[in-house]
Parts: sequence; structure tokens; C-alpha cells
Amino acid sequence: MKKKPLILVTNDDGITAPGLRALISVMNELGEVVVVAPDSPQSGMGHAITINSTLHCSRIELDKGPQVEYSCSGTPADCVKLGVNELLTRKPDLCVSGINHGSNSSINVIYSGTMSAAVEAGIEGIPAIGFSLLDFRWAADFNPIKHFVKKITQEALANGIPKGVVLNVNFPVQEEPLKGIKVCRQANAYWVEKFDKRTNPQGQEYYWLTGDFINEDKGEDTDEWALKNGYISIVPTQFDLTAHHSIQHLNSWNL
Amino acid sequence: MKKKPLILVTNDDGITAPGLRALISVMNELGEVVVVAPDSPQSGMGHAITINSTLHCSRIELDKGPQVEYSCSGTPADCVKLGVNELLTRKPDLCVSGINHGSNSSINVIYSGTMSAAVEAGIEGIPAIGFSLLDFRWAADFNPIKHFVKKITQEALANGIPKGVVLNVNFPVQEEPLKGIKVCRQANAYWVEKFDKRTNPQGQEYYWLTGDFINEDKGEDTDEWALKNGYISIVPTQFDLTAHHSIQHLNSWNL
Repeated sequence: MKKKPLILVTNDDGITAPGLRALISVMNELGEVVVVAPDSPQSGMGHAITINSTLHCSRIELDKGPQVEYSCSGTPADCVKLGVNELLTRKPDLCVSGINHGSNSSINVIYSGTMSAAVEAGIEGIPAIGFSLLDFRWAADFNPIKHFVKKITQEALANGIPKGVVLNVNFPVQEEPLKGIKVCRQANAYWVEKFDKRTNPQGQEYYWLTGDFINEDKGEDTDEWALKNGYISIVPTQFDLTAHHSIQHLNSWNL
Repeated sequence: MKKKPLILVTNDDGITAPGLRALISVMNELGEVVVVAPDSPQSGMGHAITINSTLHCSRIELDKGPQVEYSCSGTPADCVKLGVNELLTRKPDLCVSGINHGSNSSINVIYSGTMSAAVEAGIEGIPAIGFSLLDFRWAADFNPIKHFVKKITQEALANGIPKGVVLNVNFPVQEEPLKGIKVCRQANAYWVEKFDKRTNPQGQEYYWLTGDFINEDKGEDTDEWALKNGYISIVPTQFDLTAHHSIQHLNSWNL
């Protein structure tokens, strides 16, 4: 009998998040599961790592398993580093992150703790997928998408993921059945920030960061298009950030 | 007389860092300078943003100027968002970040608060450059590189930076004069983490994250090669993370 794949599971909403519990339940059907997840929400942490303070990590039991679980004081990227280099006895065959409560499509990939965990695994040579549902509520319903999470993961295990690439998978929320899966490019979109300026009881000003998401990318090959039209989006995401096409232009500068 | 360019200056080592003070002094020769920098060190923060807590920001005066300075409780990306959307009266012509105490070459770009500030500005359509010196000491000597920082910034102001691209500039440390500037690609390197496991006075285990940097990329067109050979490296860095070359492969999956 072929050995079950070892799957490292993490997220950025914290180890008690329903999205993570849903992901664990799917992965338990596919392999041997070890969870290393943050002990508190880490949304918006991007690719932060903990270098100026200490990390704490405890083996815990939140449900009957069979997964093994560790709760960690660090960021999603810390969790992957700890899992791979300290807690696991062999290199995992796959790392999955999520299911995030909220979108990580388009430029959100940059700010995403969920995707930073997948990218960290990719850097360490481990095939990796980040899953996100476009519903930021704690009570979001993950049941309708479990079937697709399983299918995408099975395909990744069967085909492998290209070297230097991790997958950014987003699921739309709608009444009707999902139309299918589209492989997409990241839409060229951005946030226009609005700072909500307030005054505290001591008379000092402070801000809350809010904003509007602006997508001016009309392409029908983008993740935003797919999600708006009832499809699941998969964007192959890389961590070689070199803009190779710009090297020639910069060589024309008088440096 | 042509209006002076408006330059937004930030960093990740905090507003009192000598690297930032050096960058401010160079930028004061080139334009009207507004500093919005973190009130404490933010190294390793990647592209983190503050969405679950409040931000504080104060106008301060650390030297005679003429720059205007704000100290902010957030991350480098927060500083850029606050500067552009709340504090500045017009869109800056350039954003510069650094000079970082320590390398942001190769894969370090992913973990870098310095570069996340530059990337954030890029996303908002502002030409941006991150500067880093390969000396992490607080007492690092920035004087030998000021001339090059000025030259690169002048070229960027004169030529513009390609849309969707920001510059990642790293300076080596050496006795001999620098050999010049090379436009490079990001070396394909990674960290092998080591977790230094200790026990606190209460008997609980904790970890310090440490590691070794491994560069197996033998290319002579990489930033690591340039820096090892006495050149300043410039990597054009993009924030469209789509691995366009992998889309075709993924379309062959049975999804």
C-alpha cells in the first residue's frame, strides 16, 4: 500500500477558525495531517516573520482528530517554518493554508497571511495551496466548497505543482451552484484607503484603516472576472519577484 | 523655476535609525521631503498592514530639517498608506524606503518591511525605491553610499520607473571603492531555518528563529553575484505575482 501523503495545514485566522477546521476535515480524507496554526488571528500580516521576539508552540487537541495539532504564537510564515524545520519528522508532501474567511484575490495576495504561509512552503520546496472563501464572517458556510477543495488538492497531489509556484484559490459566494474552476491571472486592482480619524478619551487622535477595492482590469482572464461570474479562481503565484521585462529598460539608464 | 519633486521617505528600522537619517539628508538635496516612518523597528514585517487595531501618528522634529516628519505606530506599508492618503496634500513624485540596516537581496525581498513600503507605493502608482546596506549594525556607515543613492534617485526622477515595478537596491560593504551598479535578477536562494529551543524560568519551552542563507544560484546576472563582486545591485521588482508561464500547465489538470 502506498504511504499516505503528509499534509501540513495552517491558516491566518487562527487555530479555532471554522475555515481551518473545514480544511482539516477535507485533508484527513487525503493524507496524514499535521496542523501548525497561529494561536490568534493574523489577518493582514503579509509575509511577516518573528525575528525580534520569541515563539511559543504547544501541542493541543481541539477535536477527535485524527490530525495532530500545534498552536503557535507566531505568524503564518512562522508556523510553516516551525512545522517544516522543527515539528515534522519528514518534509511534507503538501502544505495547504486556509480556508481563509475573506478574499485573497487580486492584489490582496500581497497582504495575505494565508498566502504568505503557502509562499513560505513554496520557498522551502514544498507544493502549496492557499484557499480562501469570499465571506469574511466567522459563521461563513464552508460545506458547499469542501468538494472542490478536495478535488483541487487531489489534482495537485497527482500532477505536482510547477517549481517556484504556489496556488492561490478563491471561492465566490452565491446561491446557485458554482460554475466550475478557472485558471486565471491576478487582476490589476488596488485599494483606495480611507482613514477613519477619531479622538480617544484622552483627546489624542487615532486612525482606523478602511478602504475601497478598485478593479479597473477589464480582462476576462482575471481572478476577479472569474469570481464575479460564479467560477472558482486559481492563480499560479510566484515568489521570484524580478520584473525580467524591465531589466533591459533599466540598463538604458546612465548609472 | 520647476517645482521641486515631493518625496515620501520611510523605512522599517524606525524613525530614529541612522539609515533613515542618511536617506533623509540625501533626499533633502533633491526635493521637498516628508517622512512617515514607524515609531519602532519593524524588521521582518513583510507586507503586513494594521487592520484589527488602531494607528497613531504624530508630527515630530528630530533634527533641523527642512523635512517634515511623522512618527507612526504602524508597519512600513501602513506608513505609506497614511502618508499618501491622509498626511500629504498631493501625490508624491517618489517614495524611497530605507536605507535598511541589512540585506534585502534575493528572497529577503519577501520578508522585507523596507521593500513592502516601496511595493505599497508602487501599488498606489507612485515610483518607488527601496535601499539597503549589507550591514545590520546600528552603527553602520552610510556615508560611502550616499553619492550612489543620490545618483540612482536622480536617474529614477529623470527617467521614471516602469509601471508595475519598484526598485530593490542593495549595497555591499567593502574596504575598496564600489565597482559600479548592476541591474540584476533576484537570485534563487532560500533560508534553512534553525530553531534555537530554550526553556524559560517557568519551565516552558520557547524558540528563537535563526537560520542559514543558502544560495545555489550560480548565475552571474543575480543580485547575490553582483554584491559578492563589489557591485551595487538593482532588481526591478513587481507585484503582479502571477506565474504566467504556469497557466498553460495548470489548464491541463482535470478540474
